[in-house]
Amino acid sequence: MEDVRLIEVKEEILADNIKVAAEVRQRLRDSKTMLLNLMSSPGSGKTSLILRTAEELKGSVRLGVIEADIDSTVDAEKVAARGIPAIQLRTGGFCHLDATMVIQGVDALAASEFDLIIIENVGNLVCPAEFDTGAHKNVMILSVPEGDDKPLKYPLMFTICDVLLVNKIDYLSLSDFNMVTLRKRVLALNPKIRIIEVSCKTGEGIGDWTAWLKKEVDAFRTG
Amino acid sequence: MEDVRLIEVKEEILADNIKVAAEVRQRLRDSKTMLLNLMSSPGSGKTSLILRTAEELKGSVRLGVIEADIDSTVDAEKVAARGIPAIQLRTGGFCHLDATMVIQGVDALAASEFDLIIIENVGNLVCPAEFDTGAHKNVMILSVPEGDDKPLKYPLMFTICDVLLVNKIDYLSLSDFNMVTLRKRVLALNPKIRIIEVSCKTGEGIGDWTAWLKKEVDAFRTG
Repeated sequence: MEDVRLIEVKEEILADNIKVAAEVRQRLRDSKTMLLNLMSSPGSGKTSLILRTAEELKGSVRLGVIEADIDSTVDAEKVAARGIPAIQLRTGGFCHLDATMVIQGVDALAASEFDLIIIENVGNLVCPAEFDTGAHKNVMILSVPEGDDKPLKYPLMFTICDVLLVNKIDYLSLSDFNMVTLRKRVLALNPKIRIIEVSCKTGEGIGDWTAWLKKEVDAFRTG
Repeated sequence: MEDVRLIEVKEEILADNIKVAAEVRQRLRDSKTMLLNLMSSPGSGKTSLILRTAEELKGSVRLGVIEADIDSTVDAEKVAARGIPAIQLRTGGFCHLDATMVIQGVDALAASEFDLIIIENVGNLVCPAEFDTGAHKNVMILSVPEGDDKPLKYPLMFTICDVLLVNKIDYLSLSDFNMVTLRKRVLALNPKIRIIEVSCKTGEGIGDWTAWLKKEVDAFRTG
């Protein structure tokens, strides 16, 4: 830090959907529907993970999906094409979901028919971390090509998540991504986070992820 | 769209830094300093591109860099370590730069000493597209691992840029990324955009990029 001058830019972030988020959370707890908020950068593999997960949980977990995007309905179409009930939320330029938006998705899905609803949040490592969606679990994906320095630059996202999925491990051979360094950086921010290495392309590690998820859904249903 | 129900989420986006941006732009025009705003997702290669660009322009263009991050100063340190004057703006949670923040960076850099200032914006394909920084040119990076569907999902970013750099083309062999499809999607949004394929790792295509940049800087200086 000798060579770099630093300017703190002060900006107030308006965010008080805490109350609404608590209501969403309680309402879904009452109907025994676990809500999972999936976040990542654009192109890290959120939709691919949802499709893989749906395949693995077929027959044992009733899954619904809320897709969020600035524009387009491509993700919800992909998910619906596999026979999974899906709602697309178009945020009209907005960079994240808040709990009020999530309520609209939950209402439209008829939440009580599901054991698990996965929200695919807008592709963004910044804003979604700041807004409680009302989810019971927060999960993020970091893909290998994004680099192992992301915990340094987007610390909040790593701090608020229960699980970090490190996706695209099939790219490791082409990359200077250091998994040991990544784990150290992530655990320094959030010692409780579970880190699971996966490849949605090859299927490697997906069983570890769905085993964790299945266990959580079962505990939620009976708990 | 038969299977997918769609909900439009209305949200007002507060943004009126248009006037401040115009002032930044004029002020730097007066001092013959071209301001370039570089945007992408996290981990697409913004810092690597800046380092490569600085190497190529050494001796012919006086380059300064404004780094923006939510947290950390790793990028500015990397840049400064190569002897390039760099300012780090820490946005304190904010997901993009606006023109008022850029002014602070420009002032701290003593802009008139430079022919070109590159702003490395916060890693985010959404919010930075909505806020005019006062830059004369907007450039974005899309990296191959992010996928060729990004223009469908983040159209505004592709619409406002003068140049799209498709980075990490060394990953093409491992990916189902379709360059023809990507080009079609991008040009449908923005017929005037220049698309340049590069690899910051191998150096492929970097000469095409810096040739364009050098020409623009020269035109700006004499124009």
